[in-house]
Amino acid sequence: MEVNKEAKVTLVGAGPGSSDLITIRGLRAMENADVILYDALVDKELLSTVRGDIPKIYVGKRCGSHSVTQSEINKLLVNASLNYGHVVRLKGGDPFVFGRACEEIAYVESFGIPVSVVPGITSAISVPGSQGIPMTSRGVSTSFWVMTATKSNTEISDDFVLAAQSSSTMVVLMGIRKLDEIVRKASEYRGSDTPIAIIQNGTLKNESCAVGTLSTILNFKQQINQSMPGIIIIGNVVAKHPSFFNDEVQRVLFSAL
Amino acid sequence: MEVNKEAKVTLVGAGPGSSDLITIRGLRAMENADVILYDALVDKELLSTVRGDIPKIYVGKRCGSHSVTQSEINKLLVNASLNYGHVVRLKGGDPFVFGRACEEIAYVESFGIPVSVVPGITSAISVPGSQGIPMTSRGVSTSFWVMTATKSNTEISDDFVLAAQSSSTMVVLMGIRKLDEIVRKASEYRGSDTPIAIIQNGTLKNESCAVGTLSTILNFKQQINQSMPGIIIIGNVVAKHPSFFNDEVQRVLFSAL
Ligand SMILES: C[S@@+](CC[C@H](N)C(=O)[O-])C[C@H]1O[C@@H](n2cnc3c(N)ncnc32)[C@H](O)[C@@H]1O
Ligand SMILES: C[S@@+](CC[C@H](N)C(=O)[O-])C[C@H]1O[C@@H](n2cnc3c(N)ncnc32)[C@H](O)[C@@H]1O
Repeated sequence: MEVNKEAKVTLVGAGPGSSDLITIRGLRAMENADVILYDALVDKELLSTVRGDIPKIYVGKRCGSHSVTQSEINKLLVNASLNYGHVVRLKGGDPFVFGRACEEIAYVESFGIPVSVVPGITSAISVPGSQGIPMTSRGVSTSFWVMTATKSNTEISDDFVLAAQSSSTMVVLMGIRKLDEIVRKASEYRGSDTPIAIIQNGTLKNESCAVGTLSTILNFKQQINQSMPGIIIIGNVVAKHPSFFNDEVQRVLFSAL
Repeated sequence: MEVNKEAKVTLVGAGPGSSDLITIRGLRAMENADVILYDALVDKELLSTVRGDIPKIYVGKRCGSHSVTQSEINKLLVNASLNYGHVVRLKGGDPFVFGRACEEIAYVESFGIPVSVVPGITSAISVPGSQGIPMTSRGVSTSFWVMTATKSNTEISDDFVLAAQSSSTMVVLMGIRKLDEIVRKASEYRGSDTPIAIIQNGTLKNESCAVGTLSTILNFKQQINQSMPGIIIIGNVVAKHPSFFNDEVQRVLFSAL
């Protein structure tokens, strides 16, 4: 282990999954790292593109099975930077989107260790996009709202209800297990013909997508892997785009009928 | 000019400005292009990283001074792909965020020319992020809403009002000229102490940021270049992050007092 290296931490957004969706700046940071700490959502292929002599430590936690707690990660970041020097903390998507970046930054900086952040392609936008679903589209939607469906308890949040009342594209992260409730609540405010898509493993080889309407989507539930994360997108943009009608999506759509 | 090349179009998100914030996939697409059509928001430095023998055509349009209309761009895309082969259409940020990607895709595909899309780092998230302002933060905001402030006419949209009623982080694109009205309308629903930031030339060398509250921000108006695009971000995340208190931001904050 080398000493006297300057301790610093770079939070790097790894993008949604596919290894070529990281930025040039993010890749450079990885190549200049003394150690890389990575998340559950980071694809192994991305890690394999980086020099083999840089130690890579898994610090993933998954909804439900908190293998490593946030406070343990915070401490790991500080220890790793004091021991190794430059720590790259590789996070799925963009660090500032449900990434708990603030907590990590505040903790690390409280030790006088400088932190910088490299943005990443967020799954919230790119995963729908990889299925041809835009966030906004003239005459269809002029805004999009990215949210989690539920508060820390199991209740649907007030913000979800306001979003459902708007004409905004709704993008729900970490919502797969609440799908029934999300669909029920959205239907209260938006027509039952409102299109909805559910995408898992977005931008990866095993990407899957189910498309339907608020009234039909629950028929496709057996195609959704309840133990895998996914993105739920609700709004007319889902139907507007050609992919709503293309073969592959129809296959998913029809095979469940 | 070469013939017999397969006509195809790739919409590539160039990211918010800084040339190293494009993705690996985006850069590869550029390197494999037969011609590149680029936007006003795309930085010249990014273009200069690509082989000099690839023709690069400017098709920018700017709010107010529509040098090239959207329908002209659509036709240019088709003509360029029929004449050159692989067209890379480089767009600021992410193509699916207020990028009129759908219109370009629909038009080009109607000629039987295949289109693919490479996501980009959207300015909506990364420009606040470059000032240390997160989209979400535990206990502060669990959602963010990206919008334009006004409908095609000058009225503030209904969705803006719903967003103002929520606790969501509000991110307003293309809103610099409507700042007074945005601040007035947001103040009706959120406390006048609600933090707000306005960032221009985000991620570029001349990045500027004004931070204040809904009640103070209009004092800094002379620091905002009304003829340049910018991002307005409203919500407690602006204050939560250390950058709200750091020297550089304070300088902007105080020099206007
Ligand atoms: C803790 S959040 C982190 C989001 C991340 N910071 C980002 O910007 O993408 C994790 C959630 O992101 C979504 N997600 C991330 N990558 C995904 C992918 N490749 N396919 C589908 N959903 C994904 C899922 O909703 C998942 O529950
Ligand atoms: C037509 S929209 C296109 C947005 C783009 N597709 C994206 O994802 O960033 C243009 C608006 O994006 C915002 N914008 C883009 N780049 C910016 C930058 N570097 N700094 C500040 N605002 C920017 C401004 O609000 C501008 O009016």
